[in-house]
Amino acid sequence: MRAVVMRHKKLVVDEIPIPEPGPGEVLVKTLACGICGSDLHALKHAEKLVEASRRSGGVFTMDLSRDIVMGHEFCAEIVDYGPDTKRHLPVGTRVCSMPVLIRPSGVHTVGYSNDNPGGYGEYMRLTEGLLLAVPPGLPTEQAALTEPMAVGLHAVEKARLDKDDVPLVIGCGPVGLAVIASLRLKGVRPIVAADFSPRRRQLAEALGADIVVNPAEHSPYESWREVAVWGDAARASQLPPWVSGPPLRPAVIFECVGVPGILDQIMAAAPQGTRIVVVGVCMEKDTIEPLYGINKELNLQFVLGYTREEFASMLHYIAEGTIPTAPLITGKVGIEGVAQAFEDLGSPEHHAKILVEPWRS
Amino acid sequence: MRAVVMRHKKLVVDEIPIPEPGPGEVLVKTLACGICGSDLHALKHAEKLVEASRRSGGVFTMDLSRDIVMGHEFCAEIVDYGPDTKRHLPVGTRVCSMPVLIRPSGVHTVGYSNDNPGGYGEYMRLTEGLLLAVPPGLPTEQAALTEPMAVGLHAVEKARLDKDDVPLVIGCGPVGLAVIASLRLKGVRPIVAADFSPRRRQLAEALGADIVVNPAEHSPYESWREVAVWGDAARASQLPPWVSGPPLRPAVIFECVGVPGILDQIMAAAPQGTRIVVVGVCMEKDTIEPLYGINKELNLQFVLGYTREEFASMLHYIAEGTIPTAPLITGKVGIEGVAQAFEDLGSPEHHAKILVEPWRS
Repeated sequence: MRAVVMRHKKLVVDEIPIPEPGPGEVLVKTLACGICGSDLHALKHAEKLVEASRRSGGVFTMDLSRDIVMGHEFCAEIVDYGPDTKRHLPVGTRVCSMPVLIRPSGVHTVGYSNDNPGGYGEYMRLTEGLLLAVPPGLPTEQAALTEPMAVGLHAVEKARLDKDDVPLVIGCGPVGLAVIASLRLKGVRPIVAADFSPRRRQLAEALGADIVVNPAEHSPYESWREVAVWGDAARASQLPPWVSGPPLRPAVIFECVGVPGILDQIMAAAPQGTRIVVVGVCMEKDTIEPLYGINKELNLQFVLGYTREEFASMLHYIAEGTIPTAPLITGKVGIEGVAQAFEDLGSPEHHAKILVEPWRS
Repeated sequence: MRAVVMRHKKLVVDEIPIPEPGPGEVLVKTLACGICGSDLHALKHAEKLVEASRRSGGVFTMDLSRDIVMGHEFCAEIVDYGPDTKRHLPVGTRVCSMPVLIRPSGVHTVGYSNDNPGGYGEYMRLTEGLLLAVPPGLPTEQAALTEPMAVGLHAVEKARLDKDDVPLVIGCGPVGLAVIASLRLKGVRPIVAADFSPRRRQLAEALGADIVVNPAEHSPYESWREVAVWGDAARASQLPPWVSGPPLRPAVIFECVGVPGILDQIMAAAPQGTRIVVVGVCMEKDTIEPLYGINKELNLQFVLGYTREEFASMLHYIAEGTIPTAPLITGKVGIEGVAQAFEDLGSPEHHAKILVEPWRS
């Protein structure tokens, strides 16, 4: 089959063997697969990524001297069933799946693996038990957004939001946009969001942010404060006596940037008692000032991925049209176009999500 | 009055003016005042402390070129009332108080202030509204432990513990011991605790730890695992599919050391989904590996001080004998002995808490 292969830190198009579905597995044809920021990072900083992953017990533990076919945000079509399968879904059914294989030997990733090619190739093998049929009316390209949007839903679920909370989203790349969409879904408002890029601020608005800030012009924390002041003065008395200023609703800040330094910046600026949800994936060591955390009794919730239930819910939210996914897809390429698409995604002004369609000619 | 004064980074005994109680304030005679680890730090790293405090909005913002009388863990006796006071408690009543003055201008600390001397002097001024009468049967020295023990109660309250949680306390200095005492109070068991010092491990046991570990000999995290395995296998299915090993009860780790590096060490060793309560006060910048947090979805709750209610509750718990405070007091000194006591507290083998009794001859 034809696939985009990561080989010696470059993306090349090559013919590789079609993967063989094992027991309980299914062979699928990739219809569309989104390019994720983590893939860009994996290409650019492969060694660092693998090393950090080994240090921390992460999933990026592939052997860089061997081929890797990335791509984990996919919609596919059932082609064939392997042994010991139940075959409830007919061949030809469009499906989504969490990008993992569940085997007796453990859980293996699809897309960051030497053995299980991801969605930048024509075929993949998936675990039958994880397949979700795509509702008939839903375009394939929107179904392919299930994975990245589920990341936002999971972050919002882990934030254990209360009706009084006022969220602030720092960074409006695909992760931040997914968080905004799920905040809107849950009705937690007003949503304040910040990004330096005009294009991303536009997208943040399209996905449901109420107040969108350019940090080069205005402090996102100030904008947050302006909308978070309690009308009700009685609330003031519930704050510790050393907290000055007008009483504020509780702050939940979503860190959706994932580079060293941003966490400390957020901790420095966060109001008393803020819960910070760390959704951005910072792959390097990072320095913080613990006293910011201590003096303001901050809470940091690190999050990763999504549960099986959240993944399935997201597919249905998208199918129901509850989440405006259309503005997110800003480009489509065939296999030959993937390397260029990786380049193009470097600039936030041009793209949000580019989909790879391996069968596109 | 006679007081131990921090002057040019040294502790000296000197005569200074008796503080004048302002409106709503009370003049008290210090009966006993514990020496806190933060005071040791404040003496040794004064500039760093003030600088870190200014950076982070903390309380240690005193002017080091002027005199400071430290001491914030006290039991005192009412001597005189200032103007605009209600005078419900007769002169001579023994009292405890949070070490702050609440004034129209804001909240001011007692003990880390150029203007409000703390308990290492013969007299202090306190806010009338914060005074708590010490129950008649309770020895003064035990009442003086209210403040440091309230820190532990607050940390345990902020941990929002569930009956399934298994706590692990890293560091059994006064802060760790206060946490252990409050965990025992709340009936959250087994309590696993770790410290390199034999003396502190002894104290940890005396205060209620069930399993006490010397990290030089055995991993505290291994000891924790041994007692935290679920008997009930059904629980395994609730874990994310990528978590291997036997199903474990939820971990709540109390960081009670407060030096750079310890947080990263805990994050590296913590099981999936651990809540880390940061009670230790690390006054320097610190480096962490965010991927540890991300891959295991860790939660970090930084905590500081206590609420007014927690402070009052702790005085009553101590009075009721619910908390075994006696083993904590390992020494008593008069004003002349404070400088030496600061030296002695440097070694964990000799002391837990030394009380200053300014009227002791």
